[in-house]
Amino acid sequence: MKREDLTEKLLDIKREKGWTWKHIHEAIGGLSPFLITAACLGQMKLPKAQAKRAAELFGLTEAEERMLNEPPYRGSIPSLPPTDPLIYRFYELVMVYGTTFKELIQEEFGDGIMSAIDFNMDMAREANNKGDRVKLTMSGKFLPYKYYGNDDDTPEYGFKEG
Amino acid sequence: MKREDLTEKLLDIKREKGWTWKHIHEAIGGLSPFLITAACLGQMKLPKAQAKRAAELFGLTEAEERMLNEPPYRGSIPSLPPTDPLIYRFYELVMVYGTTFKELIQEEFGDGIMSAIDFNMDMAREANNKGDRVKLTMSGKFLPYKYYGNDDDTPEYGFKEG
Amino acid sequence: MKREDLTEKLLDIKREKGWTWKHIHEAIGGLSPFLITAACLGQMKLPKAQAKRAAELFGLTEAEERMLNEPPYRGSIPSLPPTDPLIYRFYELVMVYGTTFKELIQEEFGDGIMSAIDFNMDMAREANNKGDRVKLTMSGKFLPYKYYGNDDDTPEYGFKEG
Amino acid sequence: MKREDLTEKLLDIKREKGWTWKHIHEAIGGLSPFLITAACLGQMKLPKAQAKRAAELFGLTEAEERMLNEPPYRGSIPSLPPTDPLIYRFYELVMVYGTTFKELIQEEFGDGIMSAIDFNMDMAREANNKGDRVKLTMSGKFLPYKYYGNDDDTPEYGFKEG
Amino acid sequence: MKREDLTEKLLDIKREKGWTWKHIHEAIGGLSPFLITAACLGQMKLPKAQAKRAAELFGLTEAEERMLNEPPYRGSIPSLPPTDPLIYRFYELVMVYGTTFKELIQEEFGDGIMSAIDFNMDMAREANNKGDRVKLTMSGKFLPYKYYGNDDDTPEYGFKEG
Amino acid sequence: MKREDLTEKLLDIKREKGWTWKHIHEAIGGLSPFLITAACLGQMKLPKAQAKRAAELFGLTEAEERMLNEPPYRGSIPSLPPTDPLIYRFYELVMVYGTTFKELIQEEFGDGIMSAIDFNMDMAREANNKGDRVKLTMSGKFLPYKYYGNDDDTPEYGFKEG
Amino acid sequence: MKREDLTEKLLDIKREKGWTWKHIHEAIGGLSPFLITAACLGQMKLPKAQAKRAAELFGLTEAEERMLNEPPYRGSIPSLPPTDPLIYRFYELVMVYGTTFKELIQEEFGDGIMSAIDFNMDMAREANNKGDRVKLTMSGKFLPYKYYGNDDDTPEYGFKEG
Amino acid sequence: MKREDLTEKLLDIKREKGWTWKHIHEAIGGLSPFLITAACLGQMKLPKAQAKRAAELFGLTEAEERMLNEPPYRGSIPSLPPTDPLIYRFYELVMVYGTTFKELIQEEFGDGIMSAIDFNMDMAREANNKGDRVKLTMSGKFLPYKYYGNDDDTPEYGFKEG
Amino acid sequence: MKREDLTEKLLDIKREKGWTWKHIHEAIGGLSPFLITAACLGQMKLPKAQAKRAAELFGLTEAEERMLNEPPYRGSIPSLPPTDPLIYRFYELVMVYGTTFKELIQEEFGDGIMSAIDFNMDMAREANNKGDRVKLTMSGKFLPYKYYGNDDDTPEYGFKEG
Amino acid sequence: MKREDLTEKLLDIKREKGWTWKHIHEAIGGLSPFLITAACLGQMKLPKAQAKRAAELFGLTEAEERMLNEPPYRGSIPSLPPTDPLIYRFYELVMVYGTTFKELIQEEFGDGIMSAIDFNMDMAREANNKGDRVKLTMSGKFLPYKYYGNDDDTPEYGFKEG
Repeated sequence: MKREDLTEKLLDIKREKGWTWKHIHEAIGGLSPFLITAACLGQMKLPKAQAKRAAELFGLTEAEERMLNEPPYRGSIPSLPPTDPLIYRFYELVMVYGTTFKELIQEEFGDGIMSAIDFNMDMAREANNKGDRVKLTMSGKFLPYKYYGNDDDTPEYGFKEG
Repeated sequence: MKREDLTEKLLDIKREKGWTWKHIHEAIGGLSPFLITAACLGQMKLPKAQAKRAAELFGLTEAEERMLNEPPYRGSIPSLPPTDPLIYRFYELVMVYGTTFKELIQEEFGDGIMSAIDFNMDMAREANNKGDRVKLTMSGKFLPYKYYGNDDDTPEYGFKEG
Repeated sequence: MKREDLTEKLLDIKREKGWTWKHIHEAIGGLSPFLITAACLGQMKLPKAQAKRAAELFGLTEAEERMLNEPPYRGSIPSLPPTDPLIYRFYELVMVYGTTFKELIQEEFGDGIMSAIDFNMDMAREANNKGDRVKLTMSGKFLPYKYYGNDDDTPEYGFKEG
Repeated sequence: MKREDLTEKLLDIKREKGWTWKHIHEAIGGLSPFLITAACLGQMKLPKAQAKRAAELFGLTEAEERMLNEPPYRGSIPSLPPTDPLIYRFYELVMVYGTTFKELIQEEFGDGIMSAIDFNMDMAREANNKGDRVKLTMSGKFLPYKYYGNDDDTPEYGFKEG
Repeated sequence: MKREDLTEKLLDIKREKGWTWKHIHEAIGGLSPFLITAACLGQMKLPKAQAKRAAELFGLTEAEERMLNEPPYRGSIPSLPPTDPLIYRFYELVMVYGTTFKELIQEEFGDGIMSAIDFNMDMAREANNKGDRVKLTMSGKFLPYKYYGNDDDTPEYGFKEG
Repeated sequence: MKREDLTEKLLDIKREKGWTWKHIHEAIGGLSPFLITAACLGQMKLPKAQAKRAAELFGLTEAEERMLNEPPYRGSIPSLPPTDPLIYRFYELVMVYGTTFKELIQEEFGDGIMSAIDFNMDMAREANNKGDRVKLTMSGKFLPYKYYGNDDDTPEYGFKEG
Repeated sequence: MKREDLTEKLLDIKREKGWTWKHIHEAIGGLSPFLITAACLGQMKLPKAQAKRAAELFGLTEAEERMLNEPPYRGSIPSLPPTDPLIYRFYELVMVYGTTFKELIQEEFGDGIMSAIDFNMDMAREANNKGDRVKLTMSGKFLPYKYYGNDDDTPEYGFKEG
Repeated sequence: MKREDLTEKLLDIKREKGWTWKHIHEAIGGLSPFLITAACLGQMKLPKAQAKRAAELFGLTEAEERMLNEPPYRGSIPSLPPTDPLIYRFYELVMVYGTTFKELIQEEFGDGIMSAIDFNMDMAREANNKGDRVKLTMSGKFLPYKYYGNDDDTPEYGFKEG
Repeated sequence: MKREDLTEKLLDIKREKGWTWKHIHEAIGGLSPFLITAACLGQMKLPKAQAKRAAELFGLTEAEERMLNEPPYRGSIPSLPPTDPLIYRFYELVMVYGTTFKELIQEEFGDGIMSAIDFNMDMAREANNKGDRVKLTMSGKFLPYKYYGNDDDTPEYGFKEG
Repeated sequence: MKREDLTEKLLDIKREKGWTWKHIHEAIGGLSPFLITAACLGQMKLPKAQAKRAAELFGLTEAEERMLNEPPYRGSIPSLPPTDPLIYRFYELVMVYGTTFKELIQEEFGDGIMSAIDFNMDMAREANNKGDRVKLTMSGKFLPYKYYGNDDDTPEYGFKEG
């Protein structure tokens, strides 16, 4: 059994039952909707309690329930760059604004990255009379590059004082 | 003259003067810091007034000022996937959560995309005693696929009523 | 069930019945022929009414009907660049004239894109005594890049007044 | 001398003089604006008369004038898929609608292609109160696959009579 | 049913029966052997009469016969560059002599291409006491780039008179 | 000095002098025009006598003359697949007809290849009232795969007797 | 039936029977062990006599026996560059020493190639007290580039006399 | 000025002076040798104190000193996969043992990653009478995936109790 | 039977039984846990004794047991660069520190590589109050490039005496 | 200074002087001709004595002499797969016979590789009345995979006794 077979099975059941993701979020519960969806799509694991409730909801075998609790081999896009327009627009943002992210995050935080692991996300509809907007809020822990052996205590955050 | 030569020139001046991006944002003004940085990095144009102030700040020729006002050939990442860890993490988010974005945006808004053109962004430091966090807020207009010729007025947003 | 399996099923039925696309367009109706074909090929969703009529025409299950109403993961070309000569010629047009599109659209409309989402298309045979021609008419909404924070009201469309 | 050096030179002069493409089209004349732009960008040759007028307009050497009259090695996009959003949208259209083009053109015309060589194009602004639209009209000669040795005169256009 | 499945079926029957291509060409007839082979390999369609005779020869269903009459999605090489040495040598010829083709065809014919659509081909054994040779004769219609809007009637074929 | 610099120099001189390839072929002589062009484009070496005459014609240094006599690192296409339409059509022929070449050459000659090394080529204009045609004649020595150790003398050419 | 299915079948039988390649070489005989292995792996054809003995050894159908006698579509590496370390080392040799091969073979033989078609190979264990060595002996016919039309009889092998 | 130009300059000076890395490590000091080397190669920034000492050692300008203190665009391999055998072997380890790393780290630590940011490394020579060995010790902070919204406190580390 | 099918079978059994890797290591024994895991994942062979115990543990057929004892075609990552974040971080280390590895290993050992074949590895949890760390210890035999024919006995390890 | 600039300089001098590789081998001496050529082409280092003699022969600076003594970043092929026919044939051998190498070397030696580091090579002309042959002899140390922790002394070389 491969994880993508399980994903296809879950989507087939969702379609046959006519469920929304919201319905699935409420039935599984105890975790951000964002994570529950990603787990059903084979990109995150479900913690044990949620895997159990998912198994009940979808009528899974014990092995399938355990698979939902395993960290999957991540990477959900069939080919890169993504050919689907909705997903491509995010990829485009990285291409166009990636170097801007780098400059501004580094000027504010110093040398390091925004974690994609200790990371949280939320999506909301932003009503707007010119057309509603998708509002995404991302929050990732800043992880500074560690300079092991550094005996110099001067803070190293860019040229702020420059 | 190529746009990347102009970008390199601006970064050389910034480094020689010891300027921060914040200093550049304030000197140019009248536009989100996010856009001013992207324009200096050759990814956005500067409107005429800003291009003029940038030309004064950096001491540019008239042709360079005009080039700043031209829409550039966008795409700032030297190679894809990006090799720089800070930028790669955003790429990773698209790979891991791209299909989740698709499912949740479509369930909420119907078939369409979040615009990367009518798009705004903000970055803030989120103080946290386990380590500060990078908070990014993105807001893009939702653009529904137009179904020309559709004579059916039933709303088409997923299976909400299902 | 994957969307490409459904596409293959529809094409098998079309072949077995000896139907033309025109026959399918008329049977499903209420939408541009262009969109109905794209939906059958797994690139667009069919609105609910059309999905229902398609299900009747092709004898589909309820789950298959629902799948036709879902926004698909788009991208119909088996590999890129396309190896099929008919499709490749369009790709070639992008390679050869892409920068021309960029210059001329930007000079006329300013910085932005032609939408591939709010987009309509039509194909017609153009009789010509040197050999008939394929006439394609495309119409996409122009989406200007939004310069958030811009406090400058001067129109920014190229150097028209220059 | 390489063709891209000549292209860069022309764009530098255009920027320094503050010319629009329209100004260049009128000065060179006698050819569709679409083709003059493509030739300046190194994708088409200029016929001799136009190359002569271009040389006068831009102040070129005789060798540069001759280069403008040579068929260039075509292919204008720095990398593929194109990273620039305006050009990418056209590429996306090929990916999403390429198989639809194939089905509909073949049903109407039989087995063959739309020429990208005997090809004409026009762009116009389409006023629209929901936002102006870019209207592109393409017309390419249909070239049927020749079935040499075919001794059968039955027309071969799909299953129209089916 | 996919076209490659049909191709595999035809090759299986050919192998089981111990047929040569020559046998198949004679049985189907009315078309160049070159085209009949390409159609059996899923790269060309067979006209209706030939598809009918092929169906009789191979014992195909009506749907398979119709599929033989459809223009296929062309592109027969499993991966590119081709790994098979016989086919690779042709690819090598394009890499080594491609620019020579371009220079010589353009000097003789002007700006344009040799059609791969209105195209014919023949292969013959050329006896030679140093080892027999493969002789390929290709003939493709020259298609000149059309310079729409060109008001200049001077022929544009290179510098012949230079 | 790189070979491509020498190629660029030769093309610059050809353009400045307004020479045709025909003129160059006649001036260098003693070798097929096809090979002389390929050598000038950096894909073949010129034998010593021809290199000497080329050096006189173009006014080259002794080192440049020697470089013309060296076997170059072959491969003339800037990127693959070729983006130039004229050259791409040849590439397309390989993609579409490559497997046909394999089947027909093997049936006639047995297991082996058509040499791209002991290879000759000719191009001619074929007058045709529907539009002139490019006629290419290729002749390459057939090279059979050697089955070392084979103690079986039965000819191995397919199933001809089958 | 595809050739890779036949390869998989042969390897399954070899494993089930616990045979070595040496056993298979002896049972099939009459051809270099190197070629018999390559044929079983789907990269070479077996001559008729050997295909017959292979069919007896492995218990194949008549169609499978015939397939063993067909020239396969060659190219045995699942992806390139090869990920398997043993095979990669050979690939590495080409990358590191490829240009050295070119210089030394050309200085000795003139412009041409070492044939990979009229080619023989042998592997032996070379006892060595620092660790045994793999000794590979390759012998390929030198194929000189033919300079058709060359009326100059001076030998053209590099600068030997220089 | 680009970072790779600065790297080339540092390596030129190192070569001209005949310095070892050890000499450079001692002269700059206050940081792991591993990081100092990486910074000189353009992959890490040097903290301010070290950048100052490096500027003295190599005789750099103030702008070059500041550039050493900037986080570089990381990614040091000219092309991927790496063609250099020493570096390739590490790449091979990832290909062969990557999935093993994933299984064993996850079983021990749960779902997450080993940080490449909060990461330290050491290399030592391990004397061995069969040939000395390279000993690398890597230590990276384990970063668990955060399951925001998880209201379940059961530890989630694989099936340890299973 | 393909090796990946066997891997999938082993993982299915592991999941159904609820076994840990530790349990499997103990049951098979006599080899580093690191190697046993890699063998189960299809990247290493198991020696005969271990293959036998694995066959007993998992209930395998004799052919499956033999397959476990065969050297597999190595390369475990579904696509490269790896999309899974845990594995990608190792790939990132190669990209960022690969050139540093090269410089430091070569300065210490001379020209050569760290073997990925005579290679050992260990993983341990390193308790740390800022968060536990993954500690990896790698040890690979240094393999010096052999300079055959070198009659010079001067040690060649960089410029240490410089 | 980059290594490829030094390579270009050496080849320019070789061409200007009209030297053969044989001349260079004799002048530098004390090392296999194969290695001297590879070092001049930037793929191997020259030991100190040879670097000194090369510096005298070519008239190099001290820094250039030192660069010749540094292990280069290896990988000599401009792009992969190689486009030059002579080099490509070796690449083709890896593609066609790579899996055969794997099977036969492993059956003879067990699980491991042929070293590309402790590796020697020789080329000779093999007179043959059907055309001379290139004879390459390669000899690489066999490196067995080390199975650390293996407590089983049974030899593991395939199924020889099977």
